[in-house]
Amino acid sequence: MKTALNYALILTAATLLACSPQTVDAPEAAKADTEQSEQVVQNAKVKALTDAALSGTQGYDIIESLTTEIGPRLAGTPQEARARDWGVAKMKEIGLENVRIEDFTIPGWERGVESGSIVAPYPQPLYLTALGGSVATPSGGIEAEVAYFPTFEDLESAPEGGLEGKIVYISGRMDKAPDGAGYGPANRKRRGGATEAAKRGALAVIIRSVGTDSHRFPHTGQMRYADEVKKIPIAALSAPDADQMDRMFKAGETVRVKVELGARYVGERPSGNVIGEIVGSEKPDEIILIGGHLDSWDLGTGAVDDGAGIGISMGAAKVLLDSGYKPKRTIRVVMFGAEEVGLLGGFAYVDAHKDTDLGNHVLASESDFGAERVYEIRSGLGEGASFIDELHDQIAFLGIEKGTKETNGGPDIGPMFNEGVPAIRLQQDGTDYFDLHHTPDDTFDKIGKEEIAQNVAAWTAMIWLASETEYNFRGMN
Amino acid sequence: MKTALNYALILTAATLLACSPQTVDAPEAAKADTEQSEQVVQNAKVKALTDAALSGTQGYDIIESLTTEIGPRLAGTPQEARARDWGVAKMKEIGLENVRIEDFTIPGWERGVESGSIVAPYPQPLYLTALGGSVATPSGGIEAEVAYFPTFEDLESAPEGGLEGKIVYISGRMDKAPDGAGYGPANRKRRGGATEAAKRGALAVIIRSVGTDSHRFPHTGQMRYADEVKKIPIAALSAPDADQMDRMFKAGETVRVKVELGARYVGERPSGNVIGEIVGSEKPDEIILIGGHLDSWDLGTGAVDDGAGIGISMGAAKVLLDSGYKPKRTIRVVMFGAEEVGLLGGFAYVDAHKDTDLGNHVLASESDFGAERVYEIRSGLGEGASFIDELHDQIAFLGIEKGTKETNGGPDIGPMFNEGVPAIRLQQDGTDYFDLHHTPDDTFDKIGKEEIAQNVAAWTAMIWLASETEYNFRGMN
Repeated sequence: MKTALNYALILTAATLLACSPQTVDAPEAAKADTEQSEQVVQNAKVKALTDAALSGTQGYDIIESLTTEIGPRLAGTPQEARARDWGVAKMKEIGLENVRIEDFTIPGWERGVESGSIVAPYPQPLYLTALGGSVATPSGGIEAEVAYFPTFEDLESAPEGGLEGKIVYISGRMDKAPDGAGYGPANRKRRGGATEAAKRGALAVIIRSVGTDSHRFPHTGQMRYADEVKKIPIAALSAPDADQMDRMFKAGETVRVKVELGARYVGERPSGNVIGEIVGSEKPDEIILIGGHLDSWDLGTGAVDDGAGIGISMGAAKVLLDSGYKPKRTIRVVMFGAEEVGLLGGFAYVDAHKDTDLGNHVLASESDFGAERVYEIRSGLGEGASFIDELHDQIAFLGIEKGTKETNGGPDIGPMFNEGVPAIRLQQDGTDYFDLHHTPDDTFDKIGKEEIAQNVAAWTAMIWLASETEYNFRGMN
Repeated sequence: MKTALNYALILTAATLLACSPQTVDAPEAAKADTEQSEQVVQNAKVKALTDAALSGTQGYDIIESLTTEIGPRLAGTPQEARARDWGVAKMKEIGLENVRIEDFTIPGWERGVESGSIVAPYPQPLYLTALGGSVATPSGGIEAEVAYFPTFEDLESAPEGGLEGKIVYISGRMDKAPDGAGYGPANRKRRGGATEAAKRGALAVIIRSVGTDSHRFPHTGQMRYADEVKKIPIAALSAPDADQMDRMFKAGETVRVKVELGARYVGERPSGNVIGEIVGSEKPDEIILIGGHLDSWDLGTGAVDDGAGIGISMGAAKVLLDSGYKPKRTIRVVMFGAEEVGLLGGFAYVDAHKDTDLGNHVLASESDFGAERVYEIRSGLGEGASFIDELHDQIAFLGIEKGTKETNGGPDIGPMFNEGVPAIRLQQDGTDYFDLHHTPDDTFDKIGKEEIAQNVAAWTAMIWLASETEYNFRGMN
């Protein structure tokens, strides 16, 4: 592989140089000539790297391995621990150096039993699942009349009190958008539903899943309790079950449901970030951090969320390693732990590095938005950063535009971005991402080889260019 | 509604008659003129009926009502009994006469608990469900090494014995086709898998679901045991879970799984066919039978299978009743019970009617292939039956062709077809039917208003023309 790539590179560069216009022999012209030659070589190297990615399955194979050999890997569980061991082995296998696990602990949470049904007027089962972090119902479940809120905002604007003895049901649909713009608004009920319902005296909450599909899968996801408010259980219904409830309320029915959840916190549990590097040849202390998150929810096998991000970032590292090109800066690959339960790996990373090398991180980016194609670059480098143009010049052929929205680099990058680490994001098309997100249906068959290859090509170009560029990411020089 | 329709009819017929070419006043011409006038009136009536269907939601509303107010309705359960009560009420509501239930009993079967997991080499849960009719595993489940068969034919060609202590896994995909031609071949493992595995000494069987989707839903469906062979439990895996197993075998792994099924027969249980009629005005003893089946599997709410068939047949009856047109022959609508578990309603219907009016059934047809558009007419009337042309002339505008394949009229019509009842079928596009078939995902949101209206239009035209035609279906005159 290395030999073939280098051979292709030499040929391409030689051809391009041979075709470049002759310049007169003067110092400025010589400098321009050198710069031009360097650019020609750089272009050829990026082409060789992206060609290798586009014709390979470096990322796809890693996603297959993770989702098959580990499967679901909920934060804090033995499955996540197995995934860390897998990550260490996989990093060594592709040739990363300094491979290690940075351990931390998290509040462990388990799903336990769960079931639900409509008791009246039309008895039938409900497909639901506890939201992450939810407390349990009493054993045997809670049966109560349902108080219906078409949207979370309707609940928020309801007076305090008045829902004593009731189970609150919050409906409301999520809109599809390439960048997932509908997620934030739709997710308010997931995060705040239990607190707002408890403030008004409710016993429990069920919500229409935060998702964009019409399948019988509830979508889990982390919820939050406010400290001062009673903790009540909260579960999500699949879209068809929510439709069913909505029809009953539309018909003016009084609805009773029964919900049993065994979900509970189980004390401190181990998690960790898995880290490996390609040590820089000229500026080893300057770190370009890429990664995805290793944990997944327990329902699916975490293929699009976030096996894809692990595969894409590891795949890019593998393409670069296989090429034999030596990056000047250090490329650090991180498989973050415990992202789903509150970006805990991202925060743990900052804790572990803030007194050592965090200031040397020149760029960071996480892939965590599914498995579809990258369509734009988003910058967290500040306005007019020339690196964005430099990168765009090299990956525009992949169908990637320059975006106008800013980024913090991704969920686990957020905490370090807030500490001053420059960030960038290769934004994927997430139009259908929330069809699968946090459901049992997030499985490897949803991964497309070509789409992953396009991602890996863009990421390989990005890390290579970030390693080689003269652009001063942190204004440190 | 009646008034508006008749007014439209009079206008249309008058217009068409006014525009028809004048003929000379001779006996033959007079007869031809009368025939032509009759045809013009007939055309106008069919147009009024199909217009009413296409602009209405007669079928759609009935499907919504059944799937919402009853939900799942497994044969022999209290839910199926509730569905019969719903059926009686709905028939009376739309104006059918002689509404009654014809009771029968069936061997009741219940699903009970079910769970599965891969124990080694890569521990993770499996999404599976018992096939209808399966026996249970011992309490606590069966854990064993898996014997892998890529197809059912591979199992059939394996020597007898040799699978002692093993759980058999049968993979193999089902092909998509508009008429569901892939179902029969794929279904062989569902019907015969347990028997063939037991013959060779196996403890239990898991199969790749008989379905065409890539979602995390196992497809249930009735299985059969041979009398002389040991009964062993059998379950179906979702497609992604089967993929996961296939990958492990492809990698040469030794796989162990654990399966627990609580499925069991629970003794004789009540079922029944719900029957109502539009009594014929001239030939009340000649019966045109249409219907769908009322029972569903327990996992979904039976929207495409077969809420759609109930809605389409009842919708057609309602359009005809609302029109005020009086059919010459009797239109009998039947909601068959216990279809899923072996066409038991279809057989019970023959038992109940063979000594009375079965010989007077001139035509029978069941809608039981989902909720998509009708694309062709299939005949069970023998070759060259002119009624097919007569019908085709009137419904070709709906995008319906004359098919070349023969039909027995549908699952519950098969038993009476075998007793000599002429049959016909309005074949629906079932390309995606087996994505949803027998899964939890068979829910009302999968039903399209326009597609159901097209079906109801075709069925209304069909029953009206069958009632009025001079065609001699049974050669009885």
